[in-house]
Amino acid sequence: MNKINRVAIVGGTHGNEFTGVYLIKKFEEHLNLIKRPNFETLTLLGNPQAFKESRRYIDKDLNRSFLSQDLQNSTLSGHEEMRAQVIEKMLGPKGKSQVDVIVDLHSTTANMGLSILLGELHPFTLQLAAYLTSINPEVKVSYTPLEQESNLLRSLCDFGFAIEVGPVAQAVLNAELFQKTEELVYAVLDYVERSNQGTIENIDSSLTIYRYMGVIDFPRNDHGEIKAMIHPQLQFKDYQPLHPGEPIFLTFDGKAIAYEGTSTVYPIFINEAAYYEKGIAMCLTEKQQIEL
Amino acid sequence: MNKINRVAIVGGTHGNEFTGVYLIKKFEEHLNLIKRPNFETLTLLGNPQAFKESRRYIDKDLNRSFLSQDLQNSTLSGHEEMRAQVIEKMLGPKGKSQVDVIVDLHSTTANMGLSILLGELHPFTLQLAAYLTSINPEVKVSYTPLEQESNLLRSLCDFGFAIEVGPVAQAVLNAELFQKTEELVYAVLDYVERSNQGTIENIDSSLTIYRYMGVIDFPRNDHGEIKAMIHPQLQFKDYQPLHPGEPIFLTFDGKAIAYEGTSTVYPIFINEAAYYEKGIAMCLTEKQQIEL
Repeated sequence: MNKINRVAIVGGTHGNEFTGVYLIKKFEEHLNLIKRPNFETLTLLGNPQAFKESRRYIDKDLNRSFLSQDLQNSTLSGHEEMRAQVIEKMLGPKGKSQVDVIVDLHSTTANMGLSILLGELHPFTLQLAAYLTSINPEVKVSYTPLEQESNLLRSLCDFGFAIEVGPVAQAVLNAELFQKTEELVYAVLDYVERSNQGTIENIDSSLTIYRYMGVIDFPRNDHGEIKAMIHPQLQFKDYQPLHPGEPIFLTFDGKAIAYEGTSTVYPIFINEAAYYEKGIAMCLTEKQQIEL
Repeated sequence: MNKINRVAIVGGTHGNEFTGVYLIKKFEEHLNLIKRPNFETLTLLGNPQAFKESRRYIDKDLNRSFLSQDLQNSTLSGHEEMRAQVIEKMLGPKGKSQVDVIVDLHSTTANMGLSILLGELHPFTLQLAAYLTSINPEVKVSYTPLEQESNLLRSLCDFGFAIEVGPVAQAVLNAELFQKTEELVYAVLDYVERSNQGTIENIDSSLTIYRYMGVIDFPRNDHGEIKAMIHPQLQFKDYQPLHPGEPIFLTFDGKAIAYEGTSTVYPIFINEAAYYEKGIAMCLTEKQQIEL
């Protein structure tokens, strides 16, 4: 493993996810907290204007604005399209970035606890994830294989990942989750420091990951309006097994709708507020053991 | 008590409070659910544009836009300022309204359970509130004495009140709270029906109310930025006693800040997302017994 020279901690990529925003503010006020001897740590408030307005975004989701072709398109003039280009100037360019690691801090209305979201199974991030689960068993790791180029902010560099915490409402701080996220950031930095020092011991030889399979949308009518809610039995049950035939939705008339899959799955991002407009009621994952 | 001729059920006065929005949609599709023999029931989606954008409001809080002088000011052209005038045309005029009762459906990120919010202690609404608590002990009643003219939508008529349910994140449906709110609306309508029929038995001669005393803001720095979060021990503890000296905030550095009052109070709306910008971390109430 090559030396990590620079780590960027990003918060407020979504302006109404306050945990990350206020952690960035804290880190910027107390730089010593994130300083480590053997690499540089940068901080970035992703979308300050959206934060000012307590909104996820102004024109479009910033965290879907990092496709190479968009970053290179100077005719784009939406707020987030331009902000993405500014951020790329600071951290990028994509594929040849100034930072080696991006830790993007997110929060969710789903009961995701403390989640690490990976887009690639590189040995470095896997070892890091395994370390984080070893020091805090609450930490879960989910993995979304890339089928095409990623449009996420963290895709600017090779070792980008998100810390996703919840449940917490948008535009609200939950002190307990704030502190747990903060601890997790320090653990990441400490791990990178020891990796640079070459003092990483081999930890768990096996890691549980939740591998993305696909999404389920809410049932909708012809106008695209939702016709059902997450079933109470499934609400807040992220990362728990869902068996075929178990209820996932409840119509406004009180009728349960069952999960029609043929195998047990592990839903995550159940009832995330920002995903209603994306056509996502939950993401389905399968649970896997990975040998490191 | 005079006959109630018309009841208006309003939802989505705040566009990102989905419980009310989807209840209104349901009622409008199934009018029989809210029809009663001895009065007329109207429905109203308060701020459709804000709902479309999943925001509380577009330009300003619609539920603070019903002062008489604003309703009569035809030079106002903000989205909610104009919407308030349109709504007044449908339900008002203020002080001489076309409806006798307004039930305004709200939700909150605070743990308000099922709350009835009253602005006046009129025998009719008190009896109604007592009835609701008698059929569901989860129901709490809070009362904010008016010091000046109310700017709330429900102030258009004499017997306006809010049903405030939580905790639920903005722009999210929680099926359990949806169904409980629905039941509460039916209970209100059934009560009005029996009141009109003259078949109300005397219920509880005593009612617990939480009387508004004032608000506490977050600690803030010179730029108005918050310096602390709701303390974990207080989070979700709405309607529970808070004693002098008990922690209410936690600074970002992890220091607890105590409640400095001299008497036990009962905080409500603890950590409501929409109140950060209003300078409200929680409302303080005192618990009172009222004889009916």
